[in-house]
Amino acid sequence: MEIIMKKYVIGIDFGTLSARAVVADPENGKELSSATFEYPHGVMDEKLPDGTALPKMWALQHPEDYIEALKNTVPKAIRSAKIKPEQVAGLGIDFTTCTMLPILSDGTPLCTLNEFKNDPDAYVKLWKHHGAWRETEKINEIFEKLDPERLAVYGGKLSSEWMIPKIAETLNNSPEVYEKAERFIEAGDWLSLILTGKETRSIAFAGFKACWTAQSGYPKKEILEAIDPRMKDLIDTKIPETVNGMDEIAGYLNEKGSELTTLPVGTPLAMPMIDAQAALPALGITESGQMMHILGTSACLITNSDEASPVHGISGYVENGVIPGCTTYEAGQACVGDAFDWFVKNYVPEKYMKEADEKNISVHEILRRKASTLKPGQSGLLALDWFNGNRSVLDDSSLSGMILGLTINTRPEEIYRAIIESTAFGARVILETFESQNITVNEIFAAGGIAKKDEMMMQIYADVLKKPIKIAETSQAGALGSAINAAVASGIYKNMSEAASKMSKSYIKVYFPKQENAEIYEKLYAEYKTLHDYFGRGGNNVMKRLQNLK
Amino acid sequence: MEIIMKKYVIGIDFGTLSARAVVADPENGKELSSATFEYPHGVMDEKLPDGTALPKMWALQHPEDYIEALKNTVPKAIRSAKIKPEQVAGLGIDFTTCTMLPILSDGTPLCTLNEFKNDPDAYVKLWKHHGAWRETEKINEIFEKLDPERLAVYGGKLSSEWMIPKIAETLNNSPEVYEKAERFIEAGDWLSLILTGKETRSIAFAGFKACWTAQSGYPKKEILEAIDPRMKDLIDTKIPETVNGMDEIAGYLNEKGSELTTLPVGTPLAMPMIDAQAALPALGITESGQMMHILGTSACLITNSDEASPVHGISGYVENGVIPGCTTYEAGQACVGDAFDWFVKNYVPEKYMKEADEKNISVHEILRRKASTLKPGQSGLLALDWFNGNRSVLDDSSLSGMILGLTINTRPEEIYRAIIESTAFGARVILETFESQNITVNEIFAAGGIAKKDEMMMQIYADVLKKPIKIAETSQAGALGSAINAAVASGIYKNMSEAASKMSKSYIKVYFPKQENAEIYEKLYAEYKTLHDYFGRGGNNVMKRLQNLK
Repeated sequence: MEIIMKKYVIGIDFGTLSARAVVADPENGKELSSATFEYPHGVMDEKLPDGTALPKMWALQHPEDYIEALKNTVPKAIRSAKIKPEQVAGLGIDFTTCTMLPILSDGTPLCTLNEFKNDPDAYVKLWKHHGAWRETEKINEIFEKLDPERLAVYGGKLSSEWMIPKIAETLNNSPEVYEKAERFIEAGDWLSLILTGKETRSIAFAGFKACWTAQSGYPKKEILEAIDPRMKDLIDTKIPETVNGMDEIAGYLNEKGSELTTLPVGTPLAMPMIDAQAALPALGITESGQMMHILGTSACLITNSDEASPVHGISGYVENGVIPGCTTYEAGQACVGDAFDWFVKNYVPEKYMKEADEKNISVHEILRRKASTLKPGQSGLLALDWFNGNRSVLDDSSLSGMILGLTINTRPEEIYRAIIESTAFGARVILETFESQNITVNEIFAAGGIAKKDEMMMQIYADVLKKPIKIAETSQAGALGSAINAAVASGIYKNMSEAASKMSKSYIKVYFPKQENAEIYEKLYAEYKTLHDYFGRGGNNVMKRLQNLK
Repeated sequence: MEIIMKKYVIGIDFGTLSARAVVADPENGKELSSATFEYPHGVMDEKLPDGTALPKMWALQHPEDYIEALKNTVPKAIRSAKIKPEQVAGLGIDFTTCTMLPILSDGTPLCTLNEFKNDPDAYVKLWKHHGAWRETEKINEIFEKLDPERLAVYGGKLSSEWMIPKIAETLNNSPEVYEKAERFIEAGDWLSLILTGKETRSIAFAGFKACWTAQSGYPKKEILEAIDPRMKDLIDTKIPETVNGMDEIAGYLNEKGSELTTLPVGTPLAMPMIDAQAALPALGITESGQMMHILGTSACLITNSDEASPVHGISGYVENGVIPGCTTYEAGQACVGDAFDWFVKNYVPEKYMKEADEKNISVHEILRRKASTLKPGQSGLLALDWFNGNRSVLDDSSLSGMILGLTINTRPEEIYRAIIESTAFGARVILETFESQNITVNEIFAAGGIAKKDEMMMQIYADVLKKPIKIAETSQAGALGSAINAAVASGIYKNMSEAASKMSKSYIKVYFPKQENAEIYEKLYAEYKTLHDYFGRGGNNVMKRLQNLK
């Protein structure tokens, strides 16, 4: 009698400071074990391993750390789970992005070659590496002139964090690295190459971070030439023209991949995902009409739809970018938690600080407690949440924050609450923008530290957005999302939706809109929208003019 | 040979807490001596002398304190000046207003009668007594319906500090006091009655505080009847219909007046002035085109003009109210120093407090030092100064403050400066309102503690208003103004302008506009004005709607 071994899947979440692998049961998503590994070099933002100083705004990583992470997590997780490597049906990974490096075509990172180990541009440029800001200004101008349609897909502006600016910076800083590089590749795709011996380019990275669109591929030669004549042939020489969909798999582990992971040769490897997006299947967000609202210093709103059409005012969208058959749309709020922190850091009086000290709570918490006793509309305040410009839907970094309704009786907690409310109104504008362009949002999953912590804020969001807000536990969701991806790659499930329906975690809490609050917020939102359009859509361009006066 | 004695004049300034008499040389305004007397009862805002508790918002005084002040200042000042009482050519007084009391027609205050000494309403209601707020709401409604033209003279609203609300309150609280009172009288006019035996009513008090206008006298019977049927006959029974101009004198000291002051019987007494306005002649502000800008918690803008016509948007105007032949206009900013204090008290972080402590300076001063290093427009901020509503020129207490241009890099000193700038913009709107209605302002004298202290603010005012700002020393100017008035009353000069030209003090400092700043502020003011009209004149009534939601 043949014994059929129970099968498991492994997902690895490559974050900014560490990687975490989980072994999951594909039947129910249950986590059997996990193993975490901190990158020995961490984020290099001051110097290279040899002491070479780095300019400001730089953030590098060492690619060997990722290899070490593979070696130190997967075998350990397998041992802890008390399963055999042969029981692992598939492996999936997710990675930060755009986190890119120059390599030889066999996968060798240039920074591991003796001639380049002192050259900062030969290392991994981490997603938050901002050295390319000068190049980005020029690149945006060129796109504006020569390829405005593509720019429109990304809400009118490329970020200095993205692939093309980072490559242009490398070319400017170190033509030798550019010359020598046979490939510029996302770290996630690089791991696929290392593990399988085969190069693929995940649509998630290409679509969201490398200006690739299904309609017209990568930017044309003349655009690249305008950026720098030496970059003319970048595509097809240093970046393959072909992009791989999420319905493909990255490949099968080869000898090297097997050696690094202890998994058998031939184990399927899923197409890598973007770390934030890996949370989507982990939370069961695979259907049209579901939105994940990731609330941090800024906010990201990701939603899937059966529809695939440009949505004016959002950050970008990629067909089949996360879930095959679905188009994933991203919109952003440039300033959420950052605004609360700014206020707490600069505008809270000594007496509140002392009160927080005495009660042994944070200043945020003392403000929250005071603000929680306020009713909607009670303070008479209304704010515009543009303290760091507006990303969606106006895409205008020259816009600024506004607070109105101030009197000599206005208290700090009232302003604090008004700022929080303004971010909810900002989110509602985005929601309505989606909905007015036929992208329906039925369910909202709020994720991020604030979402779990700030009950007042989440109730405000439910009341303003007039939808239940489900609180998602995403801090550990990336690896599970990758494991779900692996379950599809290994053929256990036929697609992501099916896999997620079995393996995803439930939300941990729901906030339902309160009718009496929602009614007042409806009025306040109408006021917000009027001011939003007045200041943001040309009624009065005072904010731009003040910005220019600065 | 007859020896002609040199003549002097005496002015007494009756302030909120004390009275101060000066002996001045009419030839040059030089102060020979002065004497101050603090009122023994001070401001009674908690209890009467017998312990009777007072409600909140009350502020009473004891009329005997004023008599004691006469007895304790004038003789002493004469002795210190080493002159003889016969050398005093005339006496002038100024008084806070509306500071009123109920009396018998012979001048006996009701509170000195045994039957009323426990009745708070029998005492002097000081200018800042706010017990009449309920009555004021009703009175404003009645005026709005039945006498909107009169209300327009006072910018659309009577204050609870004024004569009619205070009398209505007395009637409500204590009909016995109302019945017994043969007169309701300003304390300044009461002193004229005591000193001369003759009742007069100064146009300054009547015009600015008792709703009297040259065109139509006091409010009509039907108005008073609507306020309370028992008040129908107030005018002509308890308040004489006749009002006395500044070209008249109050009278001549009688036996009693002589006894109190040691001055000879027959010494002329000038018509009493309002304390703030007495500063005008003392500073030489007697001509058309000169404005005094009194900067305190709120601000008052007083200007004289040969023109006598309604100015839409200002607080009020009285023909011949201060200077015979001139019309005096008052406009107001509801919130100046109060806004700075609000910000300092609530929105300055601990680290700034510590820095101020270490440097042993005030928090205002630390903010000023930091804000002084900023250039106009540098912060990108623009504010509307309506933190306590808007008095002139919109007269709308439902308006509120606004700050725009905020970013997560905005620092407290930037907001502090933006609030200061907003009050300068608010003043400019008032100035332009005067000028657009043919009341020219050529010179501005800034008065009040802030004006002397805050160099940054005064430079901003000069730059925004595009006029030199002369800093006036007004803290001691009231008594000199009254002495100047006495010099006219005694016939030494034929009018106030002539007297002031000889006797007034010079300003202590001038701030001249800086061209490069003025150019930037011109742009910022244009933005302010657009938002002023948008939010204040119906473009977007969001502030009112938010106020209603509260």
